[in-house]
Amino acid sequence: MTIKLHCFGESGNAYKAALALELSGLDWEPVFVDFFNGANRTEAFRDINVMAEAPVLTDGDLTLSQSGVIQQYITDKTGKFGGRETQKYEVLRWVLWDNHKMSSQVGMTRFLMNFLPENKRPAEVITFMQGRLRAAFTTLNTHLEGRDWIVGDGLTNADLSCCSYLFYPEPFGFDRSDYPNIDAWLSRISATPGWKHPYDLMPGNPSDRA
Amino acid sequence: MTIKLHCFGESGNAYKAALALELSGLDWEPVFVDFFNGANRTEAFRDINVMAEAPVLTDGDLTLSQSGVIQQYITDKTGKFGGRETQKYEVLRWVLWDNHKMSSQVGMTRFLMNFLPENKRPAEVITFMQGRLRAAFTTLNTHLEGRDWIVGDGLTNADLSCCSYLFYPEPFGFDRSDYPNIDAWLSRISATPGWKHPYDLMPGNPSDRA
Repeated sequence: MTIKLHCFGESGNAYKAALALELSGLDWEPVFVDFFNGANRTEAFRDINVMAEAPVLTDGDLTLSQSGVIQQYITDKTGKFGGRETQKYEVLRWVLWDNHKMSSQVGMTRFLMNFLPENKRPAEVITFMQGRLRAAFTTLNTHLEGRDWIVGDGLTNADLSCCSYLFYPEPFGFDRSDYPNIDAWLSRISATPGWKHPYDLMPGNPSDRA
Repeated sequence: MTIKLHCFGESGNAYKAALALELSGLDWEPVFVDFFNGANRTEAFRDINVMAEAPVLTDGDLTLSQSGVIQQYITDKTGKFGGRETQKYEVLRWVLWDNHKMSSQVGMTRFLMNFLPENKRPAEVITFMQGRLRAAFTTLNTHLEGRDWIVGDGLTNADLSCCSYLFYPEPFGFDRSDYPNIDAWLSRISATPGWKHPYDLMPGNPSDRA
């Protein structure tokens, strides 16, 4: 049975799940969530996910949401991206850090700077969030000093979580050249056989609405 | 060997770990992190946790950070708060949602509204964040309709994560009476034998600095 991932191209959280599915070799297909027309806030969607968020994975009767949960499911099913047993806490540590300190704030800041009408962009909020993001990028860049991957010696869910929003072209106050360790690590990830850019992996991108 | 939790009373993230330790019955003791004097940003602390955050747990040679990781460790060690095996994705789902949509934003908003000097509180940011928090509280309140606990029929890490900041007295735009299902659920948690308020469980609270 083909796994379905309810997703849209602009969502870095959806990309975390889509990239893990794609690189795992599992049979999957995307189902477009028309976020920019409010599809995730309908009653039908909330019945599937009260959090009103993408991604949502369905595999037969099973429904999962939260990218970190979907990643764990893929790891349980394929044995990939979980690191060694002794590394499981360290992988989860970075997935959680990404959720609370990096992706959550990048996603919001990128939305405010790119997907709101220009006259509705809250300048003070954007400036404030960019300051917090610099601290997060510095933490990740420091951790990657002397390391090829966030945990151990190969690609794990820690990388697949933390990298996601950093591949998007829209500005949110991040320049790869300011963070050389992050820059080299992102190049390492995008050189992984089978890697795809979010706009090539999932339906929907800003040019559809231009 | 006594488990040590590096923590401070004002940290809801530390409380998630401290409350799980306390209710698990494990032998543990708090070690004060003087956050308001920058103890978490010293080089010595960053050597332990590059994220510069509390809580940090040490158990012999093992060092763990991120409250959700510490909770998982306690579950692995004691069998408590993980729900049934079939519920593990649902427990993780709410821990992740709390980290990316609720605690992260509550913690920041509460800090800005209470722990910054009055003339440095960014009004636009606070108003904006309170709007996002209302959406998060509504999601949780909706999920708790007809439920005693977030997952299944007992206390899990999902509850221990999501409840944490909601027990603090400082204002951040949350009134229990606006969210009756959350209100009843918090009462259920605080009625659990052994439950303690964060300021009774960990060293450090605002009156120390008054």
